[in-house]
Parts: sequence; structure tokens; C-alpha cells
Amino acid sequence: MIKKFNHIAIAVSDIEKSIPIYEVITGKKVKEILTVKEQGVKVAIFDIKGVLLELIQPLDLENPIAKFINSRGNAIHHIAYSVNDIEKTIKEYSELGYRMIGDKPRIGAEGKPIIFMHPKSSDGILMEFVEDKEE
Amino acid sequence: MIKKFNHIAIAVSDIEKSIPIYEVITGKKVKEILTVKEQGVKVAIFDIKGVLLELIQPLDLENPIAKFINSRGNAIHHIAYSVNDIEKTIKEYSELGYRMIGDKPRIGAEGKPIIFMHPKSSDGILMEFVEDKEE
Repeated sequence: MIKKFNHIAIAVSDIEKSIPIYEVITGKKVKEILTVKEQGVKVAIFDIKGVLLELIQPLDLENPIAKFINSRGNAIHHIAYSVNDIEKTIKEYSELGYRMIGDKPRIGAEGKPIIFMHPKSSDGILMEFVEDKEE
Repeated sequence: MIKKFNHIAIAVSDIEKSIPIYEVITGKKVKEILTVKEQGVKVAIFDIKGVLLELIQPLDLENPIAKFINSRGNAIHHIAYSVNDIEKTIKEYSELGYRMIGDKPRIGAEGKPIIFMHPKSSDGILMEFVEDKEE
């Protein structure tokens, strides 16, 4: 079902402070910085040989990611896998009894259809699926 | 300095329960199950197109990973990058003011030299470096 890791998402409280640290550690310049208003987050993307490292900073204190940071500090928030066909993926997992958050994909930060699996189905870990036909 | 993601490590309280869930979600059979006595953990490895997904279960309650699970439940524990030369990596980061945990690499679960960066240097996130000349 899944093809590869699409990205690793890390919640950070101060993205402008984090970006230069990640630039040194990875030896790569940040590829893109986006504000995704409908999700209330700012995202900085690094490309680590085809798997993205995404830093995510909440834009307001009510955001679930702000609450996550409040309890854990900066921490790894979720992992995402690439799939060929998001609708087919939802159907296949559903038939196996694996629940998604919502029943319809939405468009993620990079303009691709995404859906999250409910952590009760994914062993307590937040997991996302990204439709990426090219990979 | 880094070449790619080497693995994503997820702390779990019951690896035997987690393995079949990950087998369904990833569509892959577990590649290897190891007990690493000197680190007090059991590790299950999945190969997701060249990046490993590692489930880590502590073998006793005093293990730092047991304390991690105790406060967070099952959660993503650390990310690891592949590097060509671990001694050179340590030297390079050190010259940039980035601190490692210990000053010498040790041998990780898969028989390769590894070292962790101190989370104070890596923005609060636990990061590991794995010497892998082949990748």
C-alpha cells in the first residue's frame, strides 16, 4: 500500500530559531517555507534525499500542535507515507478495520491529497498518507 | 554531512502487539527482530524503501525508553541519519559547537558505529548518526 516515507514532521515552538539549526545538522538549505492558514501552521521543508523533514510551528495557542508542544516541548509529531491513490488507500485500510480521521482526503501543505490515520488504529502514533503518483 | 535518513525509531510498550499492526499498515513483513541486551531493548525492523522503521521496546522499567513511554505512551522516539564516516562526523559537528552524547561512537543494533547528538544541540529532538559506507 505504502511506497516510501514521504516526510517526518517535527513540531517546534520557534521555526525561525529551528531552521538554521537544521541547516547545520542536515548540511542542506531549507527548501521551502509555507504558511498554511487553514491548518494554522507555518511549515519549513528540508529534502533529505527524497524524504522530507518538515518543521511545523503553530500560529496560535489553540492549535493542537501548540498543545502538543506545550506538553512535550519540541518533539517529533508524525510520520507520513507516500501512496499512489489516496481514495484506494482509505478503502483498503477501512476494509481491514483501520480508521482514518475523517472519511475524505484534504489537500496538504504541498498541494497533494492527504489523510491521517486515527492513532487508535495506528498503535498510538500519528500517521499520514500523501498521494504522490510520481514517487 | 548526512546522506539520508537511516531510520525512524518508535518506542512501544508491547512489541509483539505492535508488529502485526505495522505489518498491515506498511504492507511489509518485519525484516528482523533483535534483543540488544547492552541497551536493554528489543527492536523490530521494517525496511521502508531503504529507510528503516524501528520499533523499540524496553526490557525493564529502569530503561530510559520505559520512562519515555511512561510519560508519553507509544511515541516517535528519535530519527537517525546515515553518514560516511562517524569519527569525521563527530569532529565536524564538534567544530561547529554541536555536542554529542559521549565522545566516542558505539556499536548500534545493526552492528554499525553510531552516536547520538545531545538534544540541547539538536533543538530538543533526539538524533542519531549511523556510519553506513554503502548507502
